[in-house]
Amino acid sequence: MSTSYFVVPVATHNTLVEKAFAHRGFNQKECQAAAQFSAYASWHGIRTHNAIKAIHLDHLFGSEVGGCRPNATIEKKNTRFSACEVWDANFKLGQATAYEAMDAAVALAEKYGVGMVSVDNAFHYLWGGGYVMDVAKKGYIAYTNCTAAVTEVVPHGGKYPTLGTNPHSWGFPTMDAVGFPIVVDWATSVIAMGRVQQFQRENKPLPPKSAVDADGQETTDANRVKALLPFGAHKGYGLSLINELVAAFIGGSLPTIRCRPDPTLENEKQAPCFFFQVIHPEALSTGVFAKGRSQKENIKAVIGDILGHGNEKCLLPGQMEADAARLSEANGGLLFTEAEMTAFAEMASESNVGPWNLGDFKKIEV
Amino acid sequence: MSTSYFVVPVATHNTLVEKAFAHRGFNQKECQAAAQFSAYASWHGIRTHNAIKAIHLDHLFGSEVGGCRPNATIEKKNTRFSACEVWDANFKLGQATAYEAMDAAVALAEKYGVGMVSVDNAFHYLWGGGYVMDVAKKGYIAYTNCTAAVTEVVPHGGKYPTLGTNPHSWGFPTMDAVGFPIVVDWATSVIAMGRVQQFQRENKPLPPKSAVDADGQETTDANRVKALLPFGAHKGYGLSLINELVAAFIGGSLPTIRCRPDPTLENEKQAPCFFFQVIHPEALSTGVFAKGRSQKENIKAVIGDILGHGNEKCLLPGQMEADAARLSEANGGLLFTEAEMTAFAEMASESNVGPWNLGDFKKIEV
Repeated sequence: MSTSYFVVPVATHNTLVEKAFAHRGFNQKECQAAAQFSAYASWHGIRTHNAIKAIHLDHLFGSEVGGCRPNATIEKKNTRFSACEVWDANFKLGQATAYEAMDAAVALAEKYGVGMVSVDNAFHYLWGGGYVMDVAKKGYIAYTNCTAAVTEVVPHGGKYPTLGTNPHSWGFPTMDAVGFPIVVDWATSVIAMGRVQQFQRENKPLPPKSAVDADGQETTDANRVKALLPFGAHKGYGLSLINELVAAFIGGSLPTIRCRPDPTLENEKQAPCFFFQVIHPEALSTGVFAKGRSQKENIKAVIGDILGHGNEKCLLPGQMEADAARLSEANGGLLFTEAEMTAFAEMASESNVGPWNLGDFKKIEV
Repeated sequence: MSTSYFVVPVATHNTLVEKAFAHRGFNQKECQAAAQFSAYASWHGIRTHNAIKAIHLDHLFGSEVGGCRPNATIEKKNTRFSACEVWDANFKLGQATAYEAMDAAVALAEKYGVGMVSVDNAFHYLWGGGYVMDVAKKGYIAYTNCTAAVTEVVPHGGKYPTLGTNPHSWGFPTMDAVGFPIVVDWATSVIAMGRVQQFQRENKPLPPKSAVDADGQETTDANRVKALLPFGAHKGYGLSLINELVAAFIGGSLPTIRCRPDPTLENEKQAPCFFFQVIHPEALSTGVFAKGRSQKENIKAVIGDILGHGNEKCLLPGQMEADAARLSEANGGLLFTEAEMTAFAEMASESNVGPWNLGDFKKIEV
């Protein structure tokens, strides 16, 4: 079954998104970061974290309610540790903060082999996988995690959601080995809350062990879901906890009050944190690879072994995003469904941007 | 239902283990590392990776077959990256290598905020959780991963085991917050192969989605199991892949030929790799915590929030190990079952160590 898509040139998309963010008070550099990042996500087939979601997040948690502050200045804290930076983002737009943090981490990794940037008072950066993919394409190993805005996930063995969907993202410069960066990137819940709503609409059962009802009992009935479960039981719970612990070391807030503005919570902090780390691949290397291989050839040989022996149909993490990018490339733009195009038309109208007529765009079937 | 244990004083255990390793040709420092580490594992209730397992691994993959070389000298490679070290362990005993690597990473973290040690030509270090727990108790955030000796795990969507059970271990200095370090530590397979054998003996079905048969089809029949599956489908697969990629950057071997000595594999490497990273907690800190809390108080508040709201019965990762340590402390020694004591008696006999009579040890019921 094929799906119809409209093809939106990147420049057209970016002009709209920049204007939409400018309309909300963001400065030029922030608007460019927002547009560039959502184009990157859409280019790689990421439908859950595109420009529409970015505007939606800014509406719910961002500039409209004070969770994100247009034109904020990042304050770089003093630290005695030379391979690390610690920032107070002062609620700057997440995309602008994350790009700048990854650039700083790359510069540190160039010098020290590894570089870290920890960010307090952050605002949602949308899709961690995008930043690590971007840095991996520049030749580095990258990692990021963040604490989610709201708590939707129940700790293993518990009944009340006190954890976010707290994602982890790792990117590896494997372009020479497999043609694209391997990107391991996912939330620590089995499914996202958006998927629960989809199951509700479609009247379908959830996957087992993905959610609980009001009593903390597992349920596959989408209508009874009150909270999500971590993937892999105690293992995913541990991974989710890591984000909260790292954030707590940085200066992060109690999870259950994060991004739920409440004037009675005097002196409590209510923002997510980001953590970024970049490793220079040469800083790992002994320089001695079997059969005189280069480091890149060794990576190719190792991946070839893993995907050999009858495993040729396995996907590498990042493969689907690479395939989507090829499709975008082949069609000369970003692919959006009719529903998404309608949302863009609303964005154009709200932001006083010129016409966004669906008839002006090329249509394709995929 | 209670279990009977023999109580073995740490000094008695260590004398035996040191002599057993000395008998196999290891030098004094290696013997001490082997004894100290297995005592630490047993003290914390780790029954799968104790001294008996250490000797078993040395027999199968170690000094008896050339996979581990007693008295080996670690070669520290030149690197231009100041926060990183890269070692060729020359097949030194894993416990001695890992202790030394963590010490080096701590020294780097003291200076740079983060320190990394990458190790090629390594030999099994038994239980990654032990090293990160040890470093966390010293006040640092620690991480390690390694590539497993043999490939027992099928990549997501595949049919042939080309991945090891590749574990990850994170430790956090949360002693002031919860009384013990939080240690997130597990293999990336749903279960270990040892558990499959246990299910076989007990004639019980495996948990779903934990293993495949010879055709790569999921099976819960322990007798038909040919290979294991990663936990959390593509998510655990990605985590397992990370260890292989990091090892491939270091200088690691193809996974399927690792630790399977084969003279026809000319010039191929066949050893696992280790990766260690230590972060100084102050290198993450903005110094600004809500309500004037200290960093430690903030961590306590965050954990209190996660385990509040009806989640009071949830365990933190590391809790069970901390409980086991309290039990060891209360009984004044390491707790071993009769089967384990018999294995120790065999170890004493093989190593020409004096008598190991079960009657000489205190017995308790737990």
